[in-house]
Amino acid sequence: MPQNNAQAPDASSLDGVRSNLPSPVRFREPQIEMAHGAGGKASRRLVEGLFVPLLFSSSSSEPLGDAAHLDFDGTRIAITTDSFVVKPLHFPGGSIGELAVNGTVNDLAVSGARAEAMVVTFVLEAGLPTPVLEAEVRAMGDAARKAGVRIAGGDTKVVEHGKADFMYITTTGIGRPLPGLTIDARSVRPGDKVLLSGPIGDHGVTILLARGDLDLEADLRSDTRSVLPWVEAMAKAAGPGIRWMRDPTRGGVATSLNELARDCGCGILLTEESIPVHDAVRGACELLGLDPLHIANEGQLLAVVAPEYADTTRHALSLSPGGENARIIGEVRQQPAGVVVVTTSYGGSRIVDMLVGDPLPRIC
Amino acid sequence: MPQNNAQAPDASSLDGVRSNLPSPVRFREPQIEMAHGAGGKASRRLVEGLFVPLLFSSSSSEPLGDAAHLDFDGTRIAITTDSFVVKPLHFPGGSIGELAVNGTVNDLAVSGARAEAMVVTFVLEAGLPTPVLEAEVRAMGDAARKAGVRIAGGDTKVVEHGKADFMYITTTGIGRPLPGLTIDARSVRPGDKVLLSGPIGDHGVTILLARGDLDLEADLRSDTRSVLPWVEAMAKAAGPGIRWMRDPTRGGVATSLNELARDCGCGILLTEESIPVHDAVRGACELLGLDPLHIANEGQLLAVVAPEYADTTRHALSLSPGGENARIIGEVRQQPAGVVVVTTSYGGSRIVDMLVGDPLPRIC
Repeated sequence: MPQNNAQAPDASSLDGVRSNLPSPVRFREPQIEMAHGAGGKASRRLVEGLFVPLLFSSSSSEPLGDAAHLDFDGTRIAITTDSFVVKPLHFPGGSIGELAVNGTVNDLAVSGARAEAMVVTFVLEAGLPTPVLEAEVRAMGDAARKAGVRIAGGDTKVVEHGKADFMYITTTGIGRPLPGLTIDARSVRPGDKVLLSGPIGDHGVTILLARGDLDLEADLRSDTRSVLPWVEAMAKAAGPGIRWMRDPTRGGVATSLNELARDCGCGILLTEESIPVHDAVRGACELLGLDPLHIANEGQLLAVVAPEYADTTRHALSLSPGGENARIIGEVRQQPAGVVVVTTSYGGSRIVDMLVGDPLPRIC
Repeated sequence: MPQNNAQAPDASSLDGVRSNLPSPVRFREPQIEMAHGAGGKASRRLVEGLFVPLLFSSSSSEPLGDAAHLDFDGTRIAITTDSFVVKPLHFPGGSIGELAVNGTVNDLAVSGARAEAMVVTFVLEAGLPTPVLEAEVRAMGDAARKAGVRIAGGDTKVVEHGKADFMYITTTGIGRPLPGLTIDARSVRPGDKVLLSGPIGDHGVTILLARGDLDLEADLRSDTRSVLPWVEAMAKAAGPGIRWMRDPTRGGVATSLNELARDCGCGILLTEESIPVHDAVRGACELLGLDPLHIANEGQLLAVVAPEYADTTRHALSLSPGGENARIIGEVRQQPAGVVVVTTSYGGSRIVDMLVGDPLPRIC
């Protein structure tokens, strides 16, 4: 990560009232851009340079995960929160309401927890037609029942017409750790295998096509789903062998694996031909100069598994509905430390970085 | 929207989509208006007519509260969530970031719980100047440290310039029940006393003046604060006597007490002259034809207390910083059931309804 350590000399003026100590804020960009919400490098700079120093307790050295695990009088609770601003609201395969529930169920699932309860908030634009809202609330209720999660409360705010884009939804889930699973990037070691549940990029490209900005048609649907059944099947089959999981949403597989490489200090070597990509996704990416590894998914699962559990885990996943195309796509190596490398079918290799910029804004 | 799950009368058809039963949705208004976010009657119609039947479990008949209390393997956890869209971002006495933390701390506090951890999300408008964001993140960090709550995680989305109004913040708090406190509207009974912590309407009128829409100036500040120290002091002094609490935010004291009257089935009789109102608030309300009882507060506390504990509770509150003006403002009566009545200093009386419409939009 380039921009990391320099202390912002002028940021101290913001807390000048209370303290003359230098501010811990290292985020130096003058304004917020779309890329800061894209889940890639710019997001990381914002989070690590501004949110972490000002908001989060500095006593923890845990890697930033999809969910926090807290101790309440000896009871472990996982919690995660996400806002959803996807545009358009509906797209082939899903909609904002369904995404808002499953996105949070999935963030808990890949942290090794089962969602138990959820609270939701809506920021609605005045003038929003009731049927549009009703469809999304219904989609949320259906997704919650399907995932077995209870919606326990919520809040609604309304802003003037034009001050939101139809609606923004925030969901917060709390869950219970699944027995026998310990997910921690720091437990990943050389020799471990990288497992992927299925074809990548379907969600991001579906959203792109649904916007109609590209003169392309394709028979493609978002992969949005709850990945909890997969996680449960894998935990049952190979719990002790599962070291790390992530659902590669914003920033795609490349960003999730770069974060892992950084957190575990190892290199990750992927075999390009083993990574399933639908033709329509590959075509759209070629047209736009994008790498499918950077495109968002909403119902795929990445896992790192101890080598002796790799086949068992892949097998368990492939027997779960939707997991038929699960593949081992690479492995963890000592070197190059902190880097993700893809070997191509021609025998060459290239470094795959985190997402830079925001080629596909507002995909979730 | 209040948390928790009131019973929807026709909730048996919650799965109407799948079973072909008629939709349980009773909300018939064609589109969303500002009033649906104002916390009054329109909000209640939206929540009870659309959100409750589609989202919430029908297994509970608990009244709608500010926070839901859940059981996790025998550990009780309180959870609450709110989105904040206040305009302007800064106002005398506070700002959106501070409000976002204290609003959630307060919702937990009046449910009888102490906030332990919080997760936050931001929806940011592209082009937002970094110093504006930094100031609010800093305000959140300061408020969280002051309230003793740990921020455990978060999420950031960015939307195009013009698709949000600077920023919207959502906070979700989880907390631990305070020992010796059981807050339940259904435990309220005739003879109980109604306690108010201090002058009402400061927050709403401060926001109104800060917008500059009114050609008025006044030396007024928002009352935004954490009410947790008050709740703790009251719990310690008179825990078993405290039946119900609420922080009267959107919709004001009138709306909170109407909800209570409805939930407990009793009447509530207030003495107008006992209710403290700053002159500036009274003046602005007279000018606009508003009732201070309908104006939002962000740092006041309403409580219903058993008569034998009323003086002790008021005394404990009045010894806490900021609670010096605490007053008994009325009492609970058998009749008129479900109605709030104010007796005026001239000896007359009037019924005070919930807030109708939205005279002061986006006050939190």
